Amino acid sequence: MENFSYHNPVKIIFGKQTIARLSDEIPAGAKVLTLYGRGSIKENGVYDQVKAALAGFEWLPFGGVDPNPRYEFCMKAVEYIRKEKVTFLLAVGGGSVIDGAKFIAAAVNFKGNPWRIVAKHAPITSALPIGVVLTLPATGSEMNGNAVISRIETNEKLAFSSPLVYPKFSILDPETTYSLPPNQVANGVVDAFVHVTEQYINPPVNAPLQDYFAESILKVLVEEGPKALSDPTNYEVRANIMWAATMALNGLIGCGVPQDWTTHTIGHELTAMCALDHGRTLAILLPGVWRTMREQTFEKLAQMGRRVFGVADGSVAEQAEAAIDATENFFRSMGMKTRLSEYGFLGTFLQPILHHITIHRHHVIDPDMAQEVLHQRL
Amino acid sequence: MENFSYHNPVKIIFGKQTIARLSDEIPAGAKVLTLYGRGSIKENGVYDQVKAALAGFEWLPFGGVDPNPRYEFCMKAVEYIRKEKVTFLLAVGGGSVIDGAKFIAAAVNFKGNPWRIVAKHAPITSALPIGVVLTLPATGSEMNGNAVISRIETNEKLAFSSPLVYPKFSILDPETTYSLPPNQVANGVVDAFVHVTEQYINPPVNAPLQDYFAESILKVLVEEGPKALSDPTNYEVRANIMWAATMALNGLIGCGVPQDWTTHTIGHELTAMCALDHGRTLAILLPGVWRTMREQTFEKLAQMGRRVFGVADGSVAEQAEAAIDATENFFRSMGMKTRLSEYGFLGTFLQPILHHITIHRHHVIDPDMAQEVLHQRL
Repeated sequence: MENFSYHNPVKIIFGKQTIARLSDEIPAGAKVLTLYGRGSIKENGVYDQVKAALAGFEWLPFGGVDPNPRYEFCMKAVEYIRKEKVTFLLAVGGGSVIDGAKFIAAAVNFKGNPWRIVAKHAPITSALPIGVVLTLPATGSEMNGNAVISRIETNEKLAFSSPLVYPKFSILDPETTYSLPPNQVANGVVDAFVHVTEQYINPPVNAPLQDYFAESILKVLVEEGPKALSDPTNYEVRANIMWAATMALNGLIGCGVPQDWTTHTIGHELTAMCALDHGRTLAILLPGVWRTMREQTFEKLAQMGRRVFGVADGSVAEQAEAAIDATENFFRSMGMKTRLSEYGFLGTFLQPILHHITIHRHHVIDPDMAQEVLHQRL
Repeated sequence: MENFSYHNPVKIIFGKQTIARLSDEIPAGAKVLTLYGRGSIKENGVYDQVKAALAGFEWLPFGGVDPNPRYEFCMKAVEYIRKEKVTFLLAVGGGSVIDGAKFIAAAVNFKGNPWRIVAKHAPITSALPIGVVLTLPATGSEMNGNAVISRIETNEKLAFSSPLVYPKFSILDPETTYSLPPNQVANGVVDAFVHVTEQYINPPVNAPLQDYFAESILKVLVEEGPKALSDPTNYEVRANIMWAATMALNGLIGCGVPQDWTTHTIGHELTAMCALDHGRTLAILLPGVWRTMREQTFEKLAQMGRRVFGVADGSVAEQAEAAIDATENFFRSMGMKTRLSEYGFLGTFLQPILHHITIHRHHVIDPDMAQEVLHQRL
């Protein structure tokens, strides 16, 4: 096991009818900006629950966050917050809304051009406090200090992290997820699955607890994910997926083990360049990344095959291949396509993506490796 | 899954040579009281490492915490802290030292008789900040807000909890555990094992992630525990046990599931009345508690048998019995006795313990049930 630090101060409030507890968690006298997405929360009753819970506060709604939250939009919120002297930011939605809130919270008091927070990882020294009402289990953003922000004019989708943007609290009511469309359920389950594997399918370092924990989350996603599609108002299924997705990226399973975020990095490029949903890019790329990086991945893939998918026989390479096939079958059972060509993207399409990676991401991703991955996944 | 809240703000610093990082974690200008036990840290080099790390601070040593920290001793530390105007409490040791620090931190500013904090769960409104250097993986106290305090004059051993006594940070260097005597290693592994089972061997509530996590910790303890006895300076083994013991009682695996602390409650009575080590009381009692409470325990015991101990065949009751036998065999492989008679305690001895439970603990433990457990474990 490698040395590590772990510090996650997010308060989780989990369960049925918990949105009402907002009023206990937001500091008395706060002026609240409530950030949300494109309006689904007005259809499924979440907005009304939030409104009722905020009755004792001065608050302003600010809707319109896009999937893959945009810098340009976030900066409008920053201006509004400065003008209105908002003191607390409440994110109501999925990872995009929460990530947007984190960037906004960091940008409000930032000196200089805030794009540098993501583009240059310019350090921030303060952030508005954030609270969360989660409506889509997927990104883990409700219990970490990470955010990913996109910029249209440059086709960029970039991440930043800071302990200052951990939510103060996150309310997770599984009932809010009943009305999610199936493609968003699938995106979320795949995203959480890949969060786990990027902290787990790496060279072994004798960290059995981290391995068992990672496998625990994967098993829950594999066992419960398809049930959420077939039985969408099953509370237990929704609760188990929601908690698993949060645990997939709150820092815990990454303690003391190597991590490799190649699939996410290439995935962000695909989303930035082709507007494919984040989860869909991951389902396409993961098998290709694993096969391309077989020296680093096959030993743990064989272990995952045995422990998660019940692979019983074969050499390490055969067990690893069986685990990759089982993973792809699981993604397909969630209704995901797993090939670029299924979305109509042909080989000629790869050139601009690879060019972009060569220019912008060569320090984290070898362009030749990315080329091999993408060609495999046509 | 039941509704829950989870909030654990302890910062963990884990790994080799991490004690030096004390100086970054204690607030500048703090006046530190360094609390420790009966001097083993002066023999194994930990005291010298702490001393070096505290070079930039005004600090006072305060040694002599007993296993099962005593109210009388803690109150001496409270007086000393008040007199010396100490502002930060550093606990260097195992669970007893950390628990003592928590009680001291809570008592320093408490109005009235501080024994009421444990005896009456009188609420505390402030506590001195605490830091930890852990030297014995066992109680999980380094990452929770619980403490157990004993009082000699009344043969009482009682617990309290408060979010105010979470350590600000805990440093876990597995190398500090190389010099532990084998009986303390065994006590620690058994204590952590029982912490898990008291949050896991309960009626099922469809919480598969919590189950898998609990089983993960149990598997690591079962696989790595005996290695710590046979190969005491194996860093990886020590690291895996240390992290597993911390995860066993930091609130995580108890999220959203029923808990039952009968084994610990009767164990505290045994320790208070017969001076048996805490871990030793648990190894004696656990099989008896499980068999006595079979309606509540057998379904999950059978699951533990299958998933942790590889039990393959039989009815639920047979699998549960096999799991109990496997647990007792595991304890014995750690060098633990598992019967009261092995320590020379005979049936006549039980009367004062049962009398004490009837008087003091009847609101948490049915005395008839305790009698059945104790008679089973003679």
